[in-house]
Amino acid sequence: MGSLDPIFYPTSIAIAGASPGKSGQWFLDSIRTSGFKGPIYAINSKGGEVSGLLAYTNVKDIPGPVDYTICCIPAPHVPQLVRDCAAKGVKTISIYTSGFSETGTQEGRDLEREIVRIAQASRIRIVGPNCLGVYSPKVGLSFASDFSRRVGKVALIGQSGGNTSYLIRAASQRGVRFSKAVSYGNACDINESHLLEYLAHDPETEIVAAYIEGIKDGERFHRVLSRLSAVKPVLVLKGGYTRAGGEIAASHTGSLAGSAEVWDSLIQQSGAISVGNLEEMVDLLVTFALLPLPRGRKVGVFGGGGGASVLATDELTMAGFTLPRLPPELIKELMELFGNTAGMIFKNPIDLSMVGYSQSFYDVVKRLLSYSSGDSFDLGLIHAGFGQAAWFSSSAFEIEINQFRDFVTRIHRETDKPLALVLQFLITNWDWQKALDLQRGCSEAGMPVFHSMASAAKAIDRFLRYHEARQRAGKTG
Amino acid sequence: MGSLDPIFYPTSIAIAGASPGKSGQWFLDSIRTSGFKGPIYAINSKGGEVSGLLAYTNVKDIPGPVDYTICCIPAPHVPQLVRDCAAKGVKTISIYTSGFSETGTQEGRDLEREIVRIAQASRIRIVGPNCLGVYSPKVGLSFASDFSRRVGKVALIGQSGGNTSYLIRAASQRGVRFSKAVSYGNACDINESHLLEYLAHDPETEIVAAYIEGIKDGERFHRVLSRLSAVKPVLVLKGGYTRAGGEIAASHTGSLAGSAEVWDSLIQQSGAISVGNLEEMVDLLVTFALLPLPRGRKVGVFGGGGGASVLATDELTMAGFTLPRLPPELIKELMELFGNTAGMIFKNPIDLSMVGYSQSFYDVVKRLLSYSSGDSFDLGLIHAGFGQAAWFSSSAFEIEINQFRDFVTRIHRETDKPLALVLQFLITNWDWQKALDLQRGCSEAGMPVFHSMASAAKAIDRFLRYHEARQRAGKTG
Repeated sequence: MGSLDPIFYPTSIAIAGASPGKSGQWFLDSIRTSGFKGPIYAINSKGGEVSGLLAYTNVKDIPGPVDYTICCIPAPHVPQLVRDCAAKGVKTISIYTSGFSETGTQEGRDLEREIVRIAQASRIRIVGPNCLGVYSPKVGLSFASDFSRRVGKVALIGQSGGNTSYLIRAASQRGVRFSKAVSYGNACDINESHLLEYLAHDPETEIVAAYIEGIKDGERFHRVLSRLSAVKPVLVLKGGYTRAGGEIAASHTGSLAGSAEVWDSLIQQSGAISVGNLEEMVDLLVTFALLPLPRGRKVGVFGGGGGASVLATDELTMAGFTLPRLPPELIKELMELFGNTAGMIFKNPIDLSMVGYSQSFYDVVKRLLSYSSGDSFDLGLIHAGFGQAAWFSSSAFEIEINQFRDFVTRIHRETDKPLALVLQFLITNWDWQKALDLQRGCSEAGMPVFHSMASAAKAIDRFLRYHEARQRAGKTG
Repeated sequence: MGSLDPIFYPTSIAIAGASPGKSGQWFLDSIRTSGFKGPIYAINSKGGEVSGLLAYTNVKDIPGPVDYTICCIPAPHVPQLVRDCAAKGVKTISIYTSGFSETGTQEGRDLEREIVRIAQASRIRIVGPNCLGVYSPKVGLSFASDFSRRVGKVALIGQSGGNTSYLIRAASQRGVRFSKAVSYGNACDINESHLLEYLAHDPETEIVAAYIEGIKDGERFHRVLSRLSAVKPVLVLKGGYTRAGGEIAASHTGSLAGSAEVWDSLIQQSGAISVGNLEEMVDLLVTFALLPLPRGRKVGVFGGGGGASVLATDELTMAGFTLPRLPPELIKELMELFGNTAGMIFKNPIDLSMVGYSQSFYDVVKRLLSYSSGDSFDLGLIHAGFGQAAWFSSSAFEIEINQFRDFVTRIHRETDKPLALVLQFLITNWDWQKALDLQRGCSEAGMPVFHSMASAAKAIDRFLRYHEARQRAGKTG
């Protein structure tokens, strides 16, 4: 079994079944938009033109070498394509086509077995079938034209194209960048264990996320997951966790789901991190990828409003954080600087709703993040709700959020304390696009952004618990 | 103690402290924008003009009658205003001003006691102090110019102006309309028990939501909450649930928070519904206000993608729902109608990702919602993720979501089955505004919309558990 490098770093790509308006064109356009540097070839048994490329009628007719083929032709024709690819010297075939073992029919299973047999005989590796394939921003390989071209440190493997796409988009939108991602479908050849084993040794990957519906070899998976978890955090979401969900998974990717109890104990023993749903996965990716590790659980909370401060305290306390009070001499200093502004409670949370996102906001947060004593903060959390009553107009809102973004990103740049943001903004009727711009501005500056205090508290707690458990076990990092 | 009608249905309003650019102007403008029909007067000790109104220097100088005053003047001047209002015959003063018992100072407590004394002597009722006051869309009274002018069946009382505003905005955006809402701050006169007692008898209110930081009289509160819960669902979020949160609540609204254990048993005994945070409150309001009561827990799930179907099944199963399989004769009928389209799994969830939001989508969902047998669905759940790989352009996205909205609102209009929507759309980088438009379109058509399968499953489960418990207890509705 060779390295999986060829599936992530192809140098030339052919798309079989590249017809205008069909999935083949979508793959073709995605790769072109993503900046793939090598040659891209269209294959269509009927010839013709797609996205300005003349299609070859067979992969073997392509003049130059081809090391990667994306297959979008109907299932019955796939075995012949694999044979032709073998003759051409293709190393990897990513099969989008469905209609294999996931159908639950003998015919589908036989067809899948046949392509595996041909591929193994000719040392071709198969991704899929019934999958979207590989996203590898380093070489410009992608299965969607809107995925980021920037390379990051998170690797994602997912047995569902839709869920894998969701995770890439939702995490990217909040500043997470990927080293690589694979939607691997039925996993007839390359499966979750191969991928996780590869990622354990991948120098470009620091964090691994997985959406898994079924495992091919439980013992091997356990071994691989344990080894990987020993060196990198691994976040695992199980699709088909319940028996009813497992039945749906069977017809989705032909997976055998297993019982929830067995799964829980496997994850627990391996040291991986169990994730409950897609939204939680995104929150954890944001945290693990963007938040520096806080030394402890003392949090300073800055931001908006008395009621928000009360609820933030509840959420954070229940998640195991403490909110130390400010020392009297520091309160005195702040009072002298800013006066006893009504609503500006110099406790913790520090309610800054009355000062707005002004220079004073910046000064107070900066001062509090930099004060050091036995009780100083291990991390800072800024929370803000937009669309408040005081904003009468769209333009006032814009000025306010621009100010907020500028001050907050400045604080983030200038502090060495871990800092996270909670932006509750799904409340105005006309400003979602500006809210997205604000989130993007903060995320691109490298700040972890959450959409609620509850999700922030939960994710940061999980992050700390992961590291606390490792420290207890004597592992570093 | 008279009725609280005057605080919700004033016929003439004066704003004390109506200076340009300050909070007084914001209240003034909010009321004008909200369509208040009676006279509105500005009061400013320095005279002058605000929003085109000439300000009176004292409430007593106003020629016509004034039954409602909003107070935005500094705390030390409030007692004199209350005296002047008494002389003028004002019935209600809503006090925005802070600097009373919430400061924790003797001076603040004394000042608050003084205004209560004056008010009681002259039979004036006080809302607040330290609050935003009343939103009563029926008469056009509001504390924010963007609140809906439409009247609904949900009443909200909240001890925090920010949290109350958040709940009004977030719930309104998802189709919930209010009969009335009060931000009641320190509750020096009118407190949570008065308000809940009033709402029990309010014919315009069918559902009650409360954000409470502290209670004034535990025994009375228990009695009132139990009586109210016997006739209407009451959703209660406790701010200051933890000890640390309670300390912050004390400096926010001067509340004595009490212990979490006492609170839990009080809510449990009274039959009210305990809510964990603001986001959950909005999900529950959407459910209670918009979802017809399903007869049971058999759910039909329609929509997007194999992986999404797997996770939907897990979430719904874990929340206590069942997803019955379609009877063979129905599968046969659908196969004949639509063919064995790949990806269109006629199990349940019914994966419609391959048919798109076309006439076939409409036909399948309609057929499945209307089939009746022992195993037919008690409710339908349509889930959709937007911003998928297949959409290359903003215009294609727009066509797709418009089609979706049209078909889905048609299905909703034509079925008598309870129907809910899960829209996972925070994933595209350029379409939040269109996503908001889509949500608004569906919400305004009266559909309950959720942002994740987990939150939908949790909220609908709570809704059913509430009604199941009432049925067991022999109560109707």
